Amino acid sequence: MKRIGYFNGTIGDYDDMQIPFSDRSVFYGDAVYDAVLVLNRRTFTLDMHLDRLYKSCAMTKIPFDMPREVLKGEIDRLLSLSEMGSIMLYLQVTRGAAPRKHEFPDDAKPNLLMFTSAVSIPPRDKRASLVSVEDLRFQYCNIKTTNLLPNVFAAQKAKEAGATEALLHRGDRVTEAAHSSILMAKDGTVIMPPLDELILPGITREIVRQICEEAGIPTVIRIFTVDELMKADEIMLCSTTKNVIFVYEIDRQQVGGKDRALREKIQELFARRVCAETGVSL
Amino acid sequence: MKRIGYFNGTIGDYDDMQIPFSDRSVFYGDAVYDAVLVLNRRTFTLDMHLDRLYKSCAMTKIPFDMPREVLKGEIDRLLSLSEMGSIMLYLQVTRGAAPRKHEFPDDAKPNLLMFTSAVSIPPRDKRASLVSVEDLRFQYCNIKTTNLLPNVFAAQKAKEAGATEALLHRGDRVTEAAHSSILMAKDGTVIMPPLDELILPGITREIVRQICEEAGIPTVIRIFTVDELMKADEIMLCSTTKNVIFVYEIDRQQVGGKDRALREKIQELFARRVCAETGVSL
Repeated sequence: MKRIGYFNGTIGDYDDMQIPFSDRSVFYGDAVYDAVLVLNRRTFTLDMHLDRLYKSCAMTKIPFDMPREVLKGEIDRLLSLSEMGSIMLYLQVTRGAAPRKHEFPDDAKPNLLMFTSAVSIPPRDKRASLVSVEDLRFQYCNIKTTNLLPNVFAAQKAKEAGATEALLHRGDRVTEAAHSSILMAKDGTVIMPPLDELILPGITREIVRQICEEAGIPTVIRIFTVDELMKADEIMLCSTTKNVIFVYEIDRQQVGGKDRALREKIQELFARRVCAETGVSL
Repeated sequence: MKRIGYFNGTIGDYDDMQIPFSDRSVFYGDAVYDAVLVLNRRTFTLDMHLDRLYKSCAMTKIPFDMPREVLKGEIDRLLSLSEMGSIMLYLQVTRGAAPRKHEFPDDAKPNLLMFTSAVSIPPRDKRASLVSVEDLRFQYCNIKTTNLLPNVFAAQKAKEAGATEALLHRGDRVTEAAHSSILMAKDGTVIMPPLDELILPGITREIVRQICEEAGIPTVIRIFTVDELMKADEIMLCSTTKNVIFVYEIDRQQVGGKDRALREKIQELFARRVCAETGVSL
């Protein structure tokens, strides 16, 4: 499926698009981004993603001043050219192009980059596996920036180990995965790590929290350890392109898979939520 | 002074140069770089910088296979078009352009980006000031990657405080500055922090170490604290474009400035080293 690119209003083939060499995303990773699931050209939780994107700009002091309605108009324009089916809409705002100097440039204007790309959403019964990797990332993980090299390294380790994702932990503490949130369930309660500077506030995770709240499934927000995770009844990976999938293996040991009723309930409720918003049945 | 850009063999005006939108430096900061001081078109410690650049590629597994002599030929071609005077030669190797996916792409080819830009080397008697900032960076600081957002934030804090540079510390431990190495001298001994994963192996710092060795100035490599730094006889900032400058103020408190003989000796020996290699007297 074709990937379509967008840069500051210009739309073209992803592979042909260019950006200024001196854009601060190139020299410093001085950029924030977000990714949205689109099904048959209908976005899922777009406003939550845009909230987070604008918040990422505020936290990094990137002076992105495009009004939300204008941005939504540009997104519509891009999506109208994209194919049907399951798509990831990627948005990136950079601090702009400027002579290379660490300090924020005085006169740069933020650049907006987007693209759409086909994704295959894993089936509900996908058996996900993890490989554990020490979390060596910085302490700005709550901001969705393009400083992602440790995530790249962790994802590559998972790939080389034949695993679905990397389980990141700081010492004993579970933080998240290379590009997903990690939740666990024990005795009917869904347990989520606290959203501090070591964890990205995942939108899919938040949807799971809302679903649990609405369905009367208790949730607790607290730190948990790798050891607790290994003994959990169920382990969930949440992300924009994976939605919610369950983990059956960590470092080649069998884990989770002990609360089928809860697992199926969360997946069913999540699929209903997606369908209500996009009209697509997963 | 004009900035000249280079991308995979093409040379042009810095402001007009473009790179592929899908280059992994844009999405992930998946790139390494180095910067070299050039005086009247003669490079200073070029081979040490290229050693480090190739090592950065090896550490990040970026398969950059351009032979050093070919790379030097491209550098010569760029420098022959650059102006005389003091120049920074910047080199960046990215993992290449590919559809966005965290894992290393199978078929991407590394991209080489360079530019030259005029720099003003601070005079020997520059009085540098620091503002202390908690070091929140990742644990890959020993690799010179473009995941530099925490350095950008720290440099911006220094700018806003009217300081020359930011002093980064992890708790009590001094690591480095936002874009310089930090050394201190006490009782005639130069003290340098150990080169672990929290610190970049600075080339200028290494030259200072060699100078001290040749001149019989004792050096010690050990962790030191902010408190020790505040009480040091002299505090040095080392970097490619600053060379060696001395710090007189941290967080608006007077520091250093207590061993003029040592300070002048190091600066004189450093200037001689630069002159021996480039023919330029600083």
